[in-house]
Amino acid sequence: MIMLFAKKSKDHRTIFKVGGVEIGGKGIVIVAGPCSVGDEKSLEATAADLKKLGVKIMRGGAYKPRTSPYSFQGHQENGLKILSKVAKSYGLLTISEALSVEQVFKVAKYCDIIQIGARHMRSSPILKTVGRLKKPVLLKRAISASYKDWLYAAEYILKEGNNKVILCERGIMGFGQETRNVLDIMSVDYMKRKTHLPVFVDPSHATGKREMVYSACLAAIAAGVDGLLIEASHSPNRELSDKRQTISTKTLGKIIKKGRTLAKAVNRSLV
Amino acid sequence: MIMLFAKKSKDHRTIFKVGGVEIGGKGIVIVAGPCSVGDEKSLEATAADLKKLGVKIMRGGAYKPRTSPYSFQGHQENGLKILSKVAKSYGLLTISEALSVEQVFKVAKYCDIIQIGARHMRSSPILKTVGRLKKPVLLKRAISASYKDWLYAAEYILKEGNNKVILCERGIMGFGQETRNVLDIMSVDYMKRKTHLPVFVDPSHATGKREMVYSACLAAIAAGVDGLLIEASHSPNRELSDKRQTISTKTLGKIIKKGRTLAKAVNRSLV
Amino acid sequence: MIMLFAKKSKDHRTIFKVGGVEIGGKGIVIVAGPCSVGDEKSLEATAADLKKLGVKIMRGGAYKPRTSPYSFQGHQENGLKILSKVAKSYGLLTISEALSVEQVFKVAKYCDIIQIGARHMRSSPILKTVGRLKKPVLLKRAISASYKDWLYAAEYILKEGNNKVILCERGIMGFGQETRNVLDIMSVDYMKRKTHLPVFVDPSHATGKREMVYSACLAAIAAGVDGLLIEASHSPNRELSDKRQTISTKTLGKIIKKGRTLAKAVNRSLV
Amino acid sequence: MIMLFAKKSKDHRTIFKVGGVEIGGKGIVIVAGPCSVGDEKSLEATAADLKKLGVKIMRGGAYKPRTSPYSFQGHQENGLKILSKVAKSYGLLTISEALSVEQVFKVAKYCDIIQIGARHMRSSPILKTVGRLKKPVLLKRAISASYKDWLYAAEYILKEGNNKVILCERGIMGFGQETRNVLDIMSVDYMKRKTHLPVFVDPSHATGKREMVYSACLAAIAAGVDGLLIEASHSPNRELSDKRQTISTKTLGKIIKKGRTLAKAVNRSLV
Repeated sequence: MIMLFAKKSKDHRTIFKVGGVEIGGKGIVIVAGPCSVGDEKSLEATAADLKKLGVKIMRGGAYKPRTSPYSFQGHQENGLKILSKVAKSYGLLTISEALSVEQVFKVAKYCDIIQIGARHMRSSPILKTVGRLKKPVLLKRAISASYKDWLYAAEYILKEGNNKVILCERGIMGFGQETRNVLDIMSVDYMKRKTHLPVFVDPSHATGKREMVYSACLAAIAAGVDGLLIEASHSPNRELSDKRQTISTKTLGKIIKKGRTLAKAVNRSLV
Repeated sequence: MIMLFAKKSKDHRTIFKVGGVEIGGKGIVIVAGPCSVGDEKSLEATAADLKKLGVKIMRGGAYKPRTSPYSFQGHQENGLKILSKVAKSYGLLTISEALSVEQVFKVAKYCDIIQIGARHMRSSPILKTVGRLKKPVLLKRAISASYKDWLYAAEYILKEGNNKVILCERGIMGFGQETRNVLDIMSVDYMKRKTHLPVFVDPSHATGKREMVYSACLAAIAAGVDGLLIEASHSPNRELSDKRQTISTKTLGKIIKKGRTLAKAVNRSLV
Repeated sequence: MIMLFAKKSKDHRTIFKVGGVEIGGKGIVIVAGPCSVGDEKSLEATAADLKKLGVKIMRGGAYKPRTSPYSFQGHQENGLKILSKVAKSYGLLTISEALSVEQVFKVAKYCDIIQIGARHMRSSPILKTVGRLKKPVLLKRAISASYKDWLYAAEYILKEGNNKVILCERGIMGFGQETRNVLDIMSVDYMKRKTHLPVFVDPSHATGKREMVYSACLAAIAAGVDGLLIEASHSPNRELSDKRQTISTKTLGKIIKKGRTLAKAVNRSLV
Repeated sequence: MIMLFAKKSKDHRTIFKVGGVEIGGKGIVIVAGPCSVGDEKSLEATAADLKKLGVKIMRGGAYKPRTSPYSFQGHQENGLKILSKVAKSYGLLTISEALSVEQVFKVAKYCDIIQIGARHMRSSPILKTVGRLKKPVLLKRAISASYKDWLYAAEYILKEGNNKVILCERGIMGFGQETRNVLDIMSVDYMKRKTHLPVFVDPSHATGKREMVYSACLAAIAAGVDGLLIEASHSPNRELSDKRQTISTKTLGKIIKKGRTLAKAVNRSLV
């Protein structure tokens, strides 16, 4: 059986546009923003910085998947409203995560890209739902998913008719507690050979440590990534979740600068 | 912070009744039935056998979580109707899995126990939803979940007010491809020390091989389990999914017989 | 290619004697003793208790595999001498671990069974060396070994002509930090089907917690184990290593008592 | 306790020379050659190619760690002799693996660097032995080792007085069977922060697929690696082991060329 995710030829690539931004093309796309949407003012400070750095897409969680029910669960629909409002006023596109079928429709209403997180990569009702929409979907790899599991999750979406699927490596479980996860950098190369879909890397969840994000971004660019999904904030230490892995927009600027040089060395550009 | 799942004393146990069946008490409860609900006639043959064996609760999937979108996805609501109808005519109670918030309400309508499977153990919207219902919930452990992750998933349900939560070990990921999963038998002992909730074992998914189900059941009984969730059928080879790990009701009879002897040896009984 | 470890028929079993003790037969063999050999007096207290409980084989490490070079490395050859001397005076047989080819010869000189630990299961020079000796070998499973890896390690020994090989499950790596390892209980059943070799379980390393050893032993007996390798001491808290998982000989007595009842329920006996 | 592997200051680095080659300095060192040493003529063809490409150190296994005792175990001491002879005639330095204490002395006799492979990373007698020699040691990470385990293995060597230790990431166990291992690329960054020791990457074992070696090398360079240990041969398909992951010296040439550009982009050079 020939899978919809499979390349039909060596150069077969899915390239699509979100707003004016091309995904899956020669340019490596930067997506950045806080882990979760907090208050409007903080988000504005970050949005302003992203704008200056030339970043076109802002991330921000409204529905937060948390291990403990006592952890901050996100501002829900109100978070989406803040994200959408701030993004619009700075001319940015948006991406946010949905944890249920119902939330998929909410995120689709307010955002440009729907994110399916690692915990719901295997949730067929959610995958089928985003498959029936026209909106681009960023599909994160589950922390213990094989490449096959991940590709079959993408197939659920493609089968329903939505081919705007971005695969996003965000780290898998490893040995030891020193880093949050293990960035499986070779998944980029593997996926680029196996599928026509664009492949992103999330260096923030993959490492769980802000000081490692810089190297992770460079390695991803060298490995052939199509985009980076980075937790960044004007004031990382004031964020409501994942502070430890959120970089400052200042550091993001350094990554973008060095990233441009590196992208050029592998015949790509950084947008 | 004191968690709701935590024991308040050494002997603190949650015991509740489903229909007339006591869960979490001295008796070890057998739940059995096919992986997925097929046609009515087949299910009746299995139900009749279960009845004869003294089994009180029948399992059967209507919404099936499958890796591939091209695999059988279950008969959906119609499957629940068949399950419910057949179970009633044989005086059996039922359990079935829900993969989304919407499906939780469907399963709650037709069944006595709502199962949250391994793939959705970390799905907070689903956990919150079952937490707001009065129905008992069987919460399977995710294939790469730590004990803490699993207990926190239970906490999501308890926090919403539903304390009829059964923990169900169903195997975790291991090394090698010889068995489907690794039955973490000591999770039973660990959980019985840590929490007041009843702990079940699913020997079928834990091993993925029908010839290993017998030993897995005996080991679970010796380890202190409160119940067993077994894939069994009148005609395993005709089932629509998980044939390879489904035992015949004849083998189930042998397990129950030997299980009774073993249960007695550890001061329990088998119901 | 037919492997030497493979069963030639359903009832094919390797049964051999160490001293007067039959390994691989109907009786389940208890091996117990401290993690590492300390001073002679402490070991004598343990040996005396073991003798009273009817235990025939005493364990005790002289060469200790430790993660840190600053941890106690064992009393080396002197430890073997103490072990051997104390065991003889109480009429016990002995087992101890070798970490190198050279140590294999030392252990062979002083002990009745040579233990190859989890860290050296894949060490072909060591496997070949014990394969050329006549002494029984207890081969522990490596913490991330598949069944195939483990069986092939046994094959290294068998190929050299020594067929007195005992496989010993001692837990594999899992998820979370709550227990030291995951006792893969079903490895017993799997191995008993696949190979004619006796299969033991080490409940102490498998759990890392002394309070879980009791349940682990019962589960292993129910699962069909041929022997148990238990860290036990007259005074667990005074031991030089692995205190946390060492049970008192008093608890060992309780395990043996309940174990006898359980063994009988599965048509075995406990020796 | 302050470990010997720990950095004393941000810029603390261990730099040493093997022959004329600086390890741990600004230059990224290429080590290449076949998985195992075969016949002299084949090795000469590879050596000639390496020489032309400017590679200074040749790898080649004489003692091969194999899962099955029926797989090629290497040409043993004769392999070391061939490796040494061919290398000398082409002015190359050599590295080869030792699997036992005894083999350490053999490898030390014929080679410039002693390799401790993944399977023996935790073997304290071997670690102590190389620690007492003056020869540089390349210490591979075990497939399921945490960073801490790996660093403590290095500490065993450092403690004995040998500080010429190279850490080499070679992939860890992951999920699925599509690649041999998971290249934990961030281990490079982590180790460079934590320790003063040089860090290498082995892209061949890390991926197990020759077509992925190119990307793996680029990612490693971008991530800050100090050297690359690559399985390469004049005629990969004629090699006696690991053919599937061995690249041609022609491909190696391409990697070196692109690697130079990339190294420059991160302020390094390639030697």
